[in-house]
Amino acid sequence: MKLDHFIQKLLPRDTRFFTLLEDSVQNTLHAAEILKDLSSRKNEKERARLVDQIKDLEHRGDEITHTIFSELNGTFVTPFDREDIHHLTSALDDILDHIDGSAGRFTLYKIKKCPRQMVELIEVLYNSIAELKKAVAMLRHMHENEEMKQLFLKVHQYENDGDTIFEQAIADLFEKEKNPIQVIKLKEIYVGLETATDKCEDAANVIEGILIKNA
Amino acid sequence: MKLDHFIQKLLPRDTRFFTLLEDSVQNTLHAAEILKDLSSRKNEKERARLVDQIKDLEHRGDEITHTIFSELNGTFVTPFDREDIHHLTSALDDILDHIDGSAGRFTLYKIKKCPRQMVELIEVLYNSIAELKKAVAMLRHMHENEEMKQLFLKVHQYENDGDTIFEQAIADLFEKEKNPIQVIKLKEIYVGLETATDKCEDAANVIEGILIKNA
Amino acid sequence: MKLDHFIQKLLPRDTRFFTLLEDSVQNTLHAAEILKDLSSRKNEKERARLVDQIKDLEHRGDEITHTIFSELNGTFVTPFDREDIHHLTSALDDILDHIDGSAGRFTLYKIKKCPRQMVELIEVLYNSIAELKKAVAMLRHMHENEEMKQLFLKVHQYENDGDTIFEQAIADLFEKEKNPIQVIKLKEIYVGLETATDKCEDAANVIEGILIKNA
Repeated sequence: MKLDHFIQKLLPRDTRFFTLLEDSVQNTLHAAEILKDLSSRKNEKERARLVDQIKDLEHRGDEITHTIFSELNGTFVTPFDREDIHHLTSALDDILDHIDGSAGRFTLYKIKKCPRQMVELIEVLYNSIAELKKAVAMLRHMHENEEMKQLFLKVHQYENDGDTIFEQAIADLFEKEKNPIQVIKLKEIYVGLETATDKCEDAANVIEGILIKNA
Repeated sequence: MKLDHFIQKLLPRDTRFFTLLEDSVQNTLHAAEILKDLSSRKNEKERARLVDQIKDLEHRGDEITHTIFSELNGTFVTPFDREDIHHLTSALDDILDHIDGSAGRFTLYKIKKCPRQMVELIEVLYNSIAELKKAVAMLRHMHENEEMKQLFLKVHQYENDGDTIFEQAIADLFEKEKNPIQVIKLKEIYVGLETATDKCEDAANVIEGILIKNA
Repeated sequence: MKLDHFIQKLLPRDTRFFTLLEDSVQNTLHAAEILKDLSSRKNEKERARLVDQIKDLEHRGDEITHTIFSELNGTFVTPFDREDIHHLTSALDDILDHIDGSAGRFTLYKIKKCPRQMVELIEVLYNSIAELKKAVAMLRHMHENEEMKQLFLKVHQYENDGDTIFEQAIADLFEKEKNPIQVIKLKEIYVGLETATDKCEDAANVIEGILIKNA
């Protein structure tokens, strides 16, 4: 990491921002992948191990976020609007925070089994972040094209899918789960996951705005 | 709508922003009106129809919001600070989202009867948006006057009224409703409605700030 | 207060901002002190009196916030970025709002006894605001030094401590409290307090950013 940092310092500033944003989204995607794995595990030790891995990625994400914010405060020339970089970085960080929070609750609240709709919601979240990763990579070229448009449509679609799964999951929870404490626990995790898909849409909107402004 | 769009393109840019903001607040007010109607209905089919109407307005609102954001990104001259237009647009959109979310929960959670305090909170929300509509209309003239001041005081008063009703409603819910699942369902709807009245105050604060800066 | 206001008008603008921010953080710290006191009281009348005192401070805080925002809108020269002052002021105001909200719920929800972990969380919140007060005072000198760095580290540490206490408190609540309504009530207060410690970190981040930019 020390060497990484040294190499980064040698790169022109614009490139550094792109690299850092790519690191951030890649790190978030990695956490989502582990969350997907976690949602199908039942062995408690296995789950604890995966939760710890996500927590490590969350710390790594905090470092990346902090580096971007420091660069922003110290750099006078940025490849695009300072506040857009800030907003995008925050959205990517929020997604990871919600993934970490949801994962932690699995073990903390002793959830024995991840409900089917929760597995589906996690799948949607993962897919949405995978599209975001492609969108962030396109920022280097800074032109809106057909591929990009399709990509944004997909993120919006995933957010809608997430909403639909979420709403039905909560309604089902209220109807079928008789233990109110269990309702509260699962609802909280669902809300965290759904908020994460919202943040994916926020991130996509910022990227879309950057492209329009720089078109 | 195609013709509308064509006419809009011919208007000077400043006027377009005002028109779009007026469309947005009018659309939100319309949704609040239907929500008021919904809160007194008991027939399930009637309710489902009204929920659908609000959902349509929410989609219309998303379109208006998206148009304003695109214009913002593409226009270099705006009648007032870009970030103020952004913030105001977001607040108006948030109000509508919360109206839509609350309405949808009525049917999704199979709420048989809207509690009296919820009817009152919806009334306060409607009144607050009605004042906001007047405030948005005044942006065209861009000077603070006595009427404007009274109007802001009213929005702040409605936010306070909303808070008081909300807090007492939740305390009563905890005391009187013995079914915890029902408590969770109704509390969630109350929170959505109360957040909507908060967003009305946010919107009013932005408008007030615009007027002070342009005085 | 009339005289105060008069003296303020005579001061150069920069100094006014510093004084107002110091007033804000001092007012918030005062509320946290009363909240600490409240958390150990059992007599209902005593508690109601302390809740009222916090409500008064919250109104005072609203006035300070409103004054800062008015000055911001009316002043062209500010000692540091307008949006940073806005963000810092909002964070300080949010902390106080959450203190006030939590205090009010103690009496509104008829919480007989503040759980041990809640007392601990309030202690952490108080300590964090005490560090913030020192950080705000340092804004006048505008240079980053060792003392300042230690201070930010402490705020981050308090936020982590708050998180840990919060997560364990909620897990314990789910495990030990058999009354679901009581779970909902206490959880809501915990969330408010934990959000307040998050906002302390937000405020510290803004101050840190200001110092880096002005280094």
